[in-house]
Amino acid sequence: MKSWRITGKSRFRRNEPKMNVDRITLPEKIPTMRVMPMPADLNQHGDVFGGWVMAQVDVAGAIPAMRRARGRVATVSVDSFLFKQPVSVGDIVSLYSEIVRIGKTSITVKVEVYAERNYADMVTVKVTEAQLTYVAIDLEGHKRDVPAEIT
Amino acid sequence: MKSWRITGKSRFRRNEPKMNVDRITLPEKIPTMRVMPMPADLNQHGDVFGGWVMAQVDVAGAIPAMRRARGRVATVSVDSFLFKQPVSVGDIVSLYSEIVRIGKTSITVKVEVYAERNYADMVTVKVTEAQLTYVAIDLEGHKRDVPAEIT
Amino acid sequence: MKSWRITGKSRFRRNEPKMNVDRITLPEKIPTMRVMPMPADLNQHGDVFGGWVMAQVDVAGAIPAMRRARGRVATVSVDSFLFKQPVSVGDIVSLYSEIVRIGKTSITVKVEVYAERNYADMVTVKVTEAQLTYVAIDLEGHKRDVPAEIT
Amino acid sequence: MKSWRITGKSRFRRNEPKMNVDRITLPEKIPTMRVMPMPADLNQHGDVFGGWVMAQVDVAGAIPAMRRARGRVATVSVDSFLFKQPVSVGDIVSLYSEIVRIGKTSITVKVEVYAERNYADMVTVKVTEAQLTYVAIDLEGHKRDVPAEIT
Amino acid sequence: MKSWRITGKSRFRRNEPKMNVDRITLPEKIPTMRVMPMPADLNQHGDVFGGWVMAQVDVAGAIPAMRRARGRVATVSVDSFLFKQPVSVGDIVSLYSEIVRIGKTSITVKVEVYAERNYADMVTVKVTEAQLTYVAIDLEGHKRDVPAEIT
Amino acid sequence: MKSWRITGKSRFRRNEPKMNVDRITLPEKIPTMRVMPMPADLNQHGDVFGGWVMAQVDVAGAIPAMRRARGRVATVSVDSFLFKQPVSVGDIVSLYSEIVRIGKTSITVKVEVYAERNYADMVTVKVTEAQLTYVAIDLEGHKRDVPAEIT
Repeated sequence: MKSWRITGKSRFRRNEPKMNVDRITLPEKIPTMRVMPMPADLNQHGDVFGGWVMAQVDVAGAIPAMRRARGRVATVSVDSFLFKQPVSVGDIVSLYSEIVRIGKTSITVKVEVYAERNYADMVTVKVTEAQLTYVAIDLEGHKRDVPAEIT
Repeated sequence: MKSWRITGKSRFRRNEPKMNVDRITLPEKIPTMRVMPMPADLNQHGDVFGGWVMAQVDVAGAIPAMRRARGRVATVSVDSFLFKQPVSVGDIVSLYSEIVRIGKTSITVKVEVYAERNYADMVTVKVTEAQLTYVAIDLEGHKRDVPAEIT
Repeated sequence: MKSWRITGKSRFRRNEPKMNVDRITLPEKIPTMRVMPMPADLNQHGDVFGGWVMAQVDVAGAIPAMRRARGRVATVSVDSFLFKQPVSVGDIVSLYSEIVRIGKTSITVKVEVYAERNYADMVTVKVTEAQLTYVAIDLEGHKRDVPAEIT
Repeated sequence: MKSWRITGKSRFRRNEPKMNVDRITLPEKIPTMRVMPMPADLNQHGDVFGGWVMAQVDVAGAIPAMRRARGRVATVSVDSFLFKQPVSVGDIVSLYSEIVRIGKTSITVKVEVYAERNYADMVTVKVTEAQLTYVAIDLEGHKRDVPAEIT
Repeated sequence: MKSWRITGKSRFRRNEPKMNVDRITLPEKIPTMRVMPMPADLNQHGDVFGGWVMAQVDVAGAIPAMRRARGRVATVSVDSFLFKQPVSVGDIVSLYSEIVRIGKTSITVKVEVYAERNYADMVTVKVTEAQLTYVAIDLEGHKRDVPAEIT
Repeated sequence: MKSWRITGKSRFRRNEPKMNVDRITLPEKIPTMRVMPMPADLNQHGDVFGGWVMAQVDVAGAIPAMRRARGRVATVSVDSFLFKQPVSVGDIVSLYSEIVRIGKTSITVKVEVYAERNYADMVTVKVTEAQLTYVAIDLEGHKRDVPAEIT
């Protein structure tokens, strides 16, 4: 539930030399969402409440699904969700969503989340990756078919 | 992302007669958490923002994990998460968590979520079931072993 | 307005030996609500904002009132409200509501609030007890009679 | 828990002619607090969540208590709290606090709450009156004497 | 974005002797709004999130505009906004709004913001001054003329 | 303070034919922030609370300022802020920030805000443009020089 401050490359291996940290960079595409946690999202330790990350991922995954479905969608399942690194105060959080499967009424989206931090010597870390399935719904909330793609 | 109003037994089959709705009841145990959504958690339609449900499940799953670990834990993964019914304004939401696996440093928890609604003729629906894995951490946020059970 | 960290049995008697703390346990019934404060509810000291406790009690008291009134109710008065202990970060807060008086249009409810804390050596404290009166209202917000009990 | 829209002089007497509404005005003193509810504080009907009013009253009562105690205070009891009218969207809410009793360590405050509404034909209503007791505390959260008044 | 703790007369001149701080007092008029930041509005350092101040100013400026327009208004521009001092935890924040110009459909308002702090030895600081322009709108959100003043 | 629904090209000219709406597109660069308003940010009409937009702009403007200052900054002024269109429920809001002036200790940033809406027939509108000045501060909150650019 709580997340925590990281001191090395991995959140679980503490004694590794900092030298070994492989600098990664953000994916070379336009982020689906890019947000900074607000004071209300932080706990005593300056880390972000776990549910905040889940909520951002849910919204970011819905964006390509709503575009493709040309209308309202509802989350039906979180197929996988991996917390690799905690999000801390001041992080710039970029979410990249990509449709990975389209069914008759459902759309499955992969969401990857990165954080940029430490303004004196900027570093990028991958914090989360997740896969969620949404279903297209009409105005009354009933399941509808995903429309044919516009070409 | 959005959830929606239900009108029948299933959220996708709209024309089924209401007669066929099998009344279910809450599990006969003490809920790990029991909450009511606040105005800020609701969308225009009176339904609950999807991320709110995820956040509640994350917290509810952490409770038995923290008790068993006798201290702090961090979420490492959402192994599965199924939205069966949306949560609506005025629902009483009960979450039941149960440890299903204990590893060297990790604890896996199953969370089931029910809503009670319609005060004039109370009905219970199962809204979500999920499985999450937490890891025991120390005060500095480093992974630690789950302690032996007190007997 | 602020609450504070406790160090002994009573929040006001500081030098009492910790030995004397009588361990209490939760009531042996199903809680009306069970919640954990979120980061946004905490002040600088890790204690919960006083108004958060009042809001939870208001909601918890309304639940049996709405069940009994089989519909909407409105709070008309807080008859008494005693803060015995502050709520701190990480506490599991259980609220037990019980109807104590039913008038023609009003329902009076007693709410008792307990916190469980310290996962390394779990302890239970009673944090609040309160009594509130609600009135049954119709859809337009006008006072209505409490319906006869279903038997 | 919910509040509701008013249509006449009293929230419970619906058929009274609007003619009879006695126009009241705000007290001729400086308000301790004056606030407008934010979107997050409102329910589906445009009324304010009951706990919001309680939280504002708790803070407004603490202000003269902190001034008089020349430092931190904690709420120990809500001695009375009467909801006379609901607060609605767009209301300007003025809270007037006044110390009514000073004990060795405690300060009792009366809080009166008014709402101004309807910009086309401004009207003032008294929404709440309450009495709360605070206790002076030191930096560690322990009870301390209320200091002598500066003269 | 972040604000910060002040230690002297000006937020930028640190070594000035505290002796030189000219004590100012609140304006001798009724504040348009008077609020205290809530825990959720504070960052790690006990200072208030900058956007919180902007939101309060926007609401405080709208109040005389809505009164004068006898109905709904919308913000069209922030003409100037100066942050002179940060707002800290426990501050009582008073906002004074005054109409400075009335156009055919627009109303320009000046907002001055003061904070009172340090209960042991109360001090008043001016934290912000701003000027905003609102436009009168009808129920459908279309621009309308500011009505003639009632005399 | 409130914003409102738009029905034509301009928010103030209602009878213009929809034909005339010039479709604009998002700038061809990576957004500094990209967010969706949450339920708590919306008013009764499904429009976003004005202060929410200001807060997002404040944060988005701070991001390039913090990168350039290689550390903490504080907002000193909003130099201009124009609300061109309201933000509505479901909008994807993209903020583009660009440094326009660097002083000895200050950094001035221009922020442009666009919304994408209507998933059935996606349309882009420019909602806000603003200019803000930040000042570089050290860990104690004192003004410091903007460091030389790394080349």
